[in-house]
Amino acid sequence: MTSPRVSFGIDRRALLAGAAAIPVLLGLPIPRQAQAQADPLASWNDGATKQSILDFVAAVAREGSPDFVPAPRRVATFDNDGTLWCEQPMYVQLAFGLDRVKELAPMHPEWKDKQPFKAALDGDMKTIVESGERGTLELVLAAHAGMTSDEFETIVKDWLAKARHPKFNRPYTDLVYQPMLELLAYMRANGFKTFIVSGGGIEFMRPWSEQVYGVPPEQVVGSSIKTRFEMRDGRPTLFRLPEVNFIDDKTGKPIGINEHIGRRPIAAFGNSDGDLEMLQRTTLSGGVRLGLIVHHTDAEREYAYDRQSHFGKLDIALDAAALNKWTVVDMKKDWKRVFAFE
Amino acid sequence: MTSPRVSFGIDRRALLAGAAAIPVLLGLPIPRQAQAQADPLASWNDGATKQSILDFVAAVAREGSPDFVPAPRRVATFDNDGTLWCEQPMYVQLAFGLDRVKELAPMHPEWKDKQPFKAALDGDMKTIVESGERGTLELVLAAHAGMTSDEFETIVKDWLAKARHPKFNRPYTDLVYQPMLELLAYMRANGFKTFIVSGGGIEFMRPWSEQVYGVPPEQVVGSSIKTRFEMRDGRPTLFRLPEVNFIDDKTGKPIGINEHIGRRPIAAFGNSDGDLEMLQRTTLSGGVRLGLIVHHTDAEREYAYDRQSHFGKLDIALDAAALNKWTVVDMKKDWKRVFAFE
Repeated sequence: MTSPRVSFGIDRRALLAGAAAIPVLLGLPIPRQAQAQADPLASWNDGATKQSILDFVAAVAREGSPDFVPAPRRVATFDNDGTLWCEQPMYVQLAFGLDRVKELAPMHPEWKDKQPFKAALDGDMKTIVESGERGTLELVLAAHAGMTSDEFETIVKDWLAKARHPKFNRPYTDLVYQPMLELLAYMRANGFKTFIVSGGGIEFMRPWSEQVYGVPPEQVVGSSIKTRFEMRDGRPTLFRLPEVNFIDDKTGKPIGINEHIGRRPIAAFGNSDGDLEMLQRTTLSGGVRLGLIVHHTDAEREYAYDRQSHFGKLDIALDAAALNKWTVVDMKKDWKRVFAFE
Repeated sequence: MTSPRVSFGIDRRALLAGAAAIPVLLGLPIPRQAQAQADPLASWNDGATKQSILDFVAAVAREGSPDFVPAPRRVATFDNDGTLWCEQPMYVQLAFGLDRVKELAPMHPEWKDKQPFKAALDGDMKTIVESGERGTLELVLAAHAGMTSDEFETIVKDWLAKARHPKFNRPYTDLVYQPMLELLAYMRANGFKTFIVSGGGIEFMRPWSEQVYGVPPEQVVGSSIKTRFEMRDGRPTLFRLPEVNFIDDKTGKPIGINEHIGRRPIAAFGNSDGDLEMLQRTTLSGGVRLGLIVHHTDAEREYAYDRQSHFGKLDIALDAAALNKWTVVDMKKDWKRVFAFE
């Protein structure tokens, strides 16, 4: 958690940023160490993919560039599942939901004979998948409603602290892509405001997005359920209701972006058909824009999947990428490293 | 519009902020001019009200204070109508709606005989008010839907450029409260992130909030109608539908804050019963918090109204202010100046 301490108008980070530039201001020689700056995208192999990112940032963030965009309009939106962290063998939030249904099962004896809950308790993924959107929604609402927003935050944090990925046997928050962490930081260093725009639950991501991605809660956009304001023992709480409020996927992404951000992004990053409309809205309205798709091609270091995948299906968005000249990351070829722990 | 130009990691504003502090770092004598800093709340008269603001900021933003709050959690939320700008003799957005209904009337001959449109065309405020929430909503939807989000932004900007306040004969954006502008800037200088949280339309405020208040679109929370994503001539647009999405008023305010910001504010500013739950949620959960109510007591320089007012009614929130020790601004007594043009 970053916690710059500010008092009486002097911001330490601003101070340091300013101090670092003093030699330039005063015409002093710049230390060699500072000249030979580390590659901000060190985990990206050199090539057309990496170059397209560098070129875009130079075009919009370098003063005097004909395509210069003022900093407040440098909005970049990132999908989460499959773009910033691993979404296989199932969405992390689904793993959370299944664990939570198991935990709540003693209070719901009827679930033993009721689908899709029975399947969840049996770990029967096939039946869950076959229960479709409606079945999945029932599971999600059972797992995510019925408590205050503060209580839910604690539940998410506690689960993430102990849950482990079945293949890598590590906390899910270790399974974020190192090249994308570098990309987030690189964009921010160039005056971009970085947002997460995910089909996942907004309240599922916020408890850890700042620590893991450097993206504060107010820059997270996601799906949500409705809440009700109520006083409990003199304390104002928000109680989470088993009712969908907003689905931040497909056409929902540009709608959610408009609602939360109120500006059109100039760069958007995704990996599946759920990101199609966000990339269209970002790139098809004139100006130099960056659309980028992470293509999972690395069965060895992570997973390889696209057109036929159940989670993170990349089919029409892959065709659209070719049509619209979006950058397609070939994970196997373009990423020197996938995870930080490698 | 602020447009700091950032390139290659060097932010000019940060540079200037840092440069100003260099004498302190180097132990150099500080120029007298810099020592005798201007009062950041120059338009506030000295007294208990102003002191409560200064004390709060010192308590949460001064490092080493027992009540210190790290900068990322320094969230402050401001109501708009009646808190940041004038809401009499009617909400600015209602004036916009009435003008727009007049403009659209030639395409809707049926409005001549249909309430509340007839009343809007006749300028019959009594009938509009009597048409209640349902009638007002009909007017709002007629005025705010049926175009793309980009088109609506242009409509709002064009209207604000030519509309004049009936009493002051000035653009509505001149009728923002100078003391509140100073307060917004003072909070930001002390590491606060300032948000607008208004019952007004989110898309009605965003086109000018940055220029007028220094609050960027992504930090504006408000009421909204639904939008539909659609491709028009190969360009992705958001079309505004005549259907309510969210009402950001009363209990809607803490809900909207949770949805957009995802953090509980530590300071909240309002002026009416519509702000009650936002102030409760902000102040009644432990820790040093600031709740502030602007009480309109100045019939000469602005307006005097509270418990019986049709717009901006301040009744139960005024009682709650006494109960919860919220700061109540007596506009006549506490503000040296109301508007910048005085």
